[in-house]
Amino acid sequence: MIDLRSDTVTKPTEAMRKAAYEAEVGDDVYEEDTTVNKLEERAAEMLGKEAALFVTSGTQGNQMAVLTHCKPGEEVILEQDAHLFVYEGASMSALAGVQPRTIKGERGAMSPTDVAAAIRGEDIHFPETGLICLENTHNKAGGAILPLENMKTIAQIAREDHVPIHLDGARLFNASAATGIAVERYAELADTVQFCLSKGLGAPVGSIIAGSADFIKKARKWRKRLGGGLRQAGIIAAPGLVALNTMTERLVDDHHHAEQLAAGLAEIDGLTVENEVETNIILINTKQAGYTAKQFLDALKEEGILAVPFGPHTVRFVTNYHITKEDIDTVLIKVNQLVN
Amino acid sequence: MIDLRSDTVTKPTEAMRKAAYEAEVGDDVYEEDTTVNKLEERAAEMLGKEAALFVTSGTQGNQMAVLTHCKPGEEVILEQDAHLFVYEGASMSALAGVQPRTIKGERGAMSPTDVAAAIRGEDIHFPETGLICLENTHNKAGGAILPLENMKTIAQIAREDHVPIHLDGARLFNASAATGIAVERYAELADTVQFCLSKGLGAPVGSIIAGSADFIKKARKWRKRLGGGLRQAGIIAAPGLVALNTMTERLVDDHHHAEQLAAGLAEIDGLTVENEVETNIILINTKQAGYTAKQFLDALKEEGILAVPFGPHTVRFVTNYHITKEDIDTVLIKVNQLVN
Amino acid sequence: MIDLRSDTVTKPTEAMRKAAYEAEVGDDVYEEDTTVNKLEERAAEMLGKEAALFVTSGTQGNQMAVLTHCKPGEEVILEQDAHLFVYEGASMSALAGVQPRTIKGERGAMSPTDVAAAIRGEDIHFPETGLICLENTHNKAGGAILPLENMKTIAQIAREDHVPIHLDGARLFNASAATGIAVERYAELADTVQFCLSKGLGAPVGSIIAGSADFIKKARKWRKRLGGGLRQAGIIAAPGLVALNTMTERLVDDHHHAEQLAAGLAEIDGLTVENEVETNIILINTKQAGYTAKQFLDALKEEGILAVPFGPHTVRFVTNYHITKEDIDTVLIKVNQLVN
Amino acid sequence: MIDLRSDTVTKPTEAMRKAAYEAEVGDDVYEEDTTVNKLEERAAEMLGKEAALFVTSGTQGNQMAVLTHCKPGEEVILEQDAHLFVYEGASMSALAGVQPRTIKGERGAMSPTDVAAAIRGEDIHFPETGLICLENTHNKAGGAILPLENMKTIAQIAREDHVPIHLDGARLFNASAATGIAVERYAELADTVQFCLSKGLGAPVGSIIAGSADFIKKARKWRKRLGGGLRQAGIIAAPGLVALNTMTERLVDDHHHAEQLAAGLAEIDGLTVENEVETNIILINTKQAGYTAKQFLDALKEEGILAVPFGPHTVRFVTNYHITKEDIDTVLIKVNQLVN
Repeated sequence: MIDLRSDTVTKPTEAMRKAAYEAEVGDDVYEEDTTVNKLEERAAEMLGKEAALFVTSGTQGNQMAVLTHCKPGEEVILEQDAHLFVYEGASMSALAGVQPRTIKGERGAMSPTDVAAAIRGEDIHFPETGLICLENTHNKAGGAILPLENMKTIAQIAREDHVPIHLDGARLFNASAATGIAVERYAELADTVQFCLSKGLGAPVGSIIAGSADFIKKARKWRKRLGGGLRQAGIIAAPGLVALNTMTERLVDDHHHAEQLAAGLAEIDGLTVENEVETNIILINTKQAGYTAKQFLDALKEEGILAVPFGPHTVRFVTNYHITKEDIDTVLIKVNQLVN
Repeated sequence: MIDLRSDTVTKPTEAMRKAAYEAEVGDDVYEEDTTVNKLEERAAEMLGKEAALFVTSGTQGNQMAVLTHCKPGEEVILEQDAHLFVYEGASMSALAGVQPRTIKGERGAMSPTDVAAAIRGEDIHFPETGLICLENTHNKAGGAILPLENMKTIAQIAREDHVPIHLDGARLFNASAATGIAVERYAELADTVQFCLSKGLGAPVGSIIAGSADFIKKARKWRKRLGGGLRQAGIIAAPGLVALNTMTERLVDDHHHAEQLAAGLAEIDGLTVENEVETNIILINTKQAGYTAKQFLDALKEEGILAVPFGPHTVRFVTNYHITKEDIDTVLIKVNQLVN
Repeated sequence: MIDLRSDTVTKPTEAMRKAAYEAEVGDDVYEEDTTVNKLEERAAEMLGKEAALFVTSGTQGNQMAVLTHCKPGEEVILEQDAHLFVYEGASMSALAGVQPRTIKGERGAMSPTDVAAAIRGEDIHFPETGLICLENTHNKAGGAILPLENMKTIAQIAREDHVPIHLDGARLFNASAATGIAVERYAELADTVQFCLSKGLGAPVGSIIAGSADFIKKARKWRKRLGGGLRQAGIIAAPGLVALNTMTERLVDDHHHAEQLAAGLAEIDGLTVENEVETNIILINTKQAGYTAKQFLDALKEEGILAVPFGPHTVRFVTNYHITKEDIDTVLIKVNQLVN
Repeated sequence: MIDLRSDTVTKPTEAMRKAAYEAEVGDDVYEEDTTVNKLEERAAEMLGKEAALFVTSGTQGNQMAVLTHCKPGEEVILEQDAHLFVYEGASMSALAGVQPRTIKGERGAMSPTDVAAAIRGEDIHFPETGLICLENTHNKAGGAILPLENMKTIAQIAREDHVPIHLDGARLFNASAATGIAVERYAELADTVQFCLSKGLGAPVGSIIAGSADFIKKARKWRKRLGGGLRQAGIIAAPGLVALNTMTERLVDDHHHAEQLAAGLAEIDGLTVENEVETNIILINTKQAGYTAKQFLDALKEEGILAVPFGPHTVRFVTNYHITKEDIDTVLIKVNQLVN
């Protein structure tokens, strides 16, 4: 099987498994797991934040940000296709009692004017604006990179209105690998940042949420309430540390493979590449080829290729470190046969 | 002062005050207030529903609908300018833990295709769709009337997907007065309906929420939790009953006055009427006249006229039963002087 | 019928009805209802607080206190039979996301030592203590009066730990009438106070919540979220003002009647008065007489007397301004016949 | 250091580390991690339940039970010292909006009569009873075992009232090891059961929640909302499987060590063993010895012994698989020197 469903399917490397095997551990609820502590320090340092916390998923990191920044009855501004809004089971409302206020963006980027207009004034009928969430790279927009300028302008608006910013950077290292801009420069435009160790970086489990020391102290209690307080977590933090230390630079390979795949697919009659491929995600439209997304995926599966639906006629491919240049060639041949 | 801020500012008529004075009352928590009971029965009957409940505001009725229909972690589909989303302090998320999924409508009406597309399928990442909310007339869209056909198509989609519909009919009687379609015919397209006694109908306090007997039984407990369980509520239910029995037909006068006002304003250079005036709400744009909404409202106030801002350059006027033809003439003269 | 179920069943006096009829009103969402404003000012003044807000029930006032003082995940300390815990539909958890921490009290009064021990220290496993609630008079404890000394000691503990105090004073004027201690002196020991206009004071609808100006500003928005933002609320605020101005001193009559009733019941073989009757509530035990509470109440009802169950063999009687000395005599005769 | 703070501090065995190293993994969000699947099947089978789910902590399992069984505004009956109430940050109220109704138990066991009396009847003022939680063994009661008879009687009451039961069996295998009663027999008295792999069983991370297939399906979505949906979770499920397969029988050793420690401590003047030691927890009172818990723990620490405070003068020791007979001897010698 050539598995292009997501970069979450990546299995740990030998080095990661070895790290798990050898990990120095302790009880992390007592903050005594030295491997976890090392990972958190390293992550905070890379992001230029005071402190960081190891969490079990990107969703958990994002929800902890909402829970810690906001109070019930507040509003959170975010792009209408943001992961936090589309793929997290309405958690921000269910757990934190906040109302999402969605804005249609351009390739995942909200217009700063729209953001400014969406911030609520004082009125007995209005929720207070409690948070702005950005997503970089933006999953639904096909791994699109939020331009640094866009983030800067929004950050300035937010600062003027005293609204904090949370950056859902599940794939922030992909943005950085593609632009050459250090993650720290993205991170400094947000109060808090979440990124995943388990996607392109290949770790088996976990994400990081980073921010001020005070934020992390409060977030730690919310993590406990969510059941994310682990014991000898070094077993999974160790591969996370390997991921962070050795896997960030190789993301450019995934991007090259994605480019290669997109270029090939674009040449196939009946298929359209919907997104401008900047990182490791390709969205193709199968309508003209006479397939619904589901039909297309079923046919692909028979050929030993996996991807996921992203709309009635949209299919998403995600390259990852298991995918080789040869796999891409195979996929292109098979898809070509399928469509023609 | 000519008060065109809202139809909520209407003061009770002599008949309503007299009804309050004479009202037969009891303890409504024990369901022994005969006047409340009479009002609820009358309202249920007019809407063609099994049962109805007297609540203290439209917001309370709407929120009780969400709390009773939904579970936390579900999603509610509604138009992006719906009162429930814009003007109720994010209550649906704060109290009921549900996530609003907003759709941009046309004159307040969501396209049935968009609604169908917004209903979530089964996926571990997705919230379940728990409710569809419609608003008729639609306040933010300038008192626009949802076409019966639009409601029918959405109702059919909802039924197929087993998603209930709540109708925020705060001004449903305005829709009915304008179209001649009985409120019952609108109501039968929704599982639950809320309408206000305190807006165009002129009662001092209160709204009605109606639905199945089972729904009302559950909603009654949510009303208690919100602190809406009243004691000798007949004192305010009595004027509500007067409103329901005697004030619905006179809404056409408000509509005529609104039409007259809109026609006059449209002729004034620099002002544009933003909405197609179908009921009692007029939205004008003041930009070309060189005014922000706030500046315009301040200037109007000095002339003894009140209205409210509805956007940076948008001002809303609402006719109501205190407003006479002469008031409209006066407003037009004053606005004319102001702008020219 | 002699209705001793509650003091909530009291119907408005002629003076109250007249006040409703003549009330000067405005739109209270715009804070323009002069009668409401007058009532709120008067109430604030009587309680010695900066500001007050008219709400539709004691439950609404109590819940607004919890919502305004607390954040989700906090703990609220209160007596195990407190109205807020037993009779408000778990609202404090459902709406505000806080956990009640109940303490068994003596005649409704928690021991200050127990309160101090219940305040949580800092620990990743613990909720923060967000509020202490007191109830005076205490309904379940049979209208028991919290001793001022008890309140003072708890207030001091609370202040040291920076935990606010809310006083559920639904029947605070009964406490004051019985002890001669001004309500202001009770109120100064709490950050916020709620009292009911609709119980012994006889108003048809409504309660007051009072506190600092900042608290009331925030609470006002929570009131809106709960649907408690009314329009021409002067219609019910006017009788409330009559209640506040003319009905507080007559509560001693209710207390005399309660004393008379308790004394009479105590002499009947098979019945025991469970509480030390200090105000207007009497709890009797019917077990020895061979009745369950339900059986006893059914038998009473046939004799034209109403009361409510308060336990498997406990029946509550509440005197109120409709109950005369003659009614008490009648009740005693009928009960005597019933039991013997 | 001899670490008797908790059985959560246990570090993974060589076999567990090796299992982690070699684990077959997949993406568990897609339910494709074969090791996780194997663990869940094995756990379900041992408990006699249809299905089970791997979660990251006992708290997460417990909270998922509350979220899945209950609706906001319901009440949960549990012992007043239950872990769910005391040590989970008020999560059940913060996340699920339910109100805990606590009952004082005897050695952790609630009297069935009290439970029956606490189940709410139908009344507009009352929350519905949504769940009963039992804890076996009971941590705060010193590892006390709930008698099977007690559980049976409560289960029968619950069934009659259609209230589900959740068993917090964080240390259920300790109960089973001590009584010889299979975990399945305890589990059949509850609708859902949670137990921890990371306490006495020694796994680095994780717990199990088990119940009907339908329950687990719904719980899985709540796990996702809490951020507990992991990717290649086999890395930690594998040691969990080792724990489940090889570590349950050795719990009797911990119990013998606890017995030995308790017997020794009981002989030391000034110290009292507060609990009847049935499993691996010992609570001692230090008051007579002139120590507060904190002072005693500080002194112990200087001697290389760790424990935790469990009250102002109460210290908890927990034996676990790192603790040998020699450690116990050392502890007794050191404590003896300390106190005398």
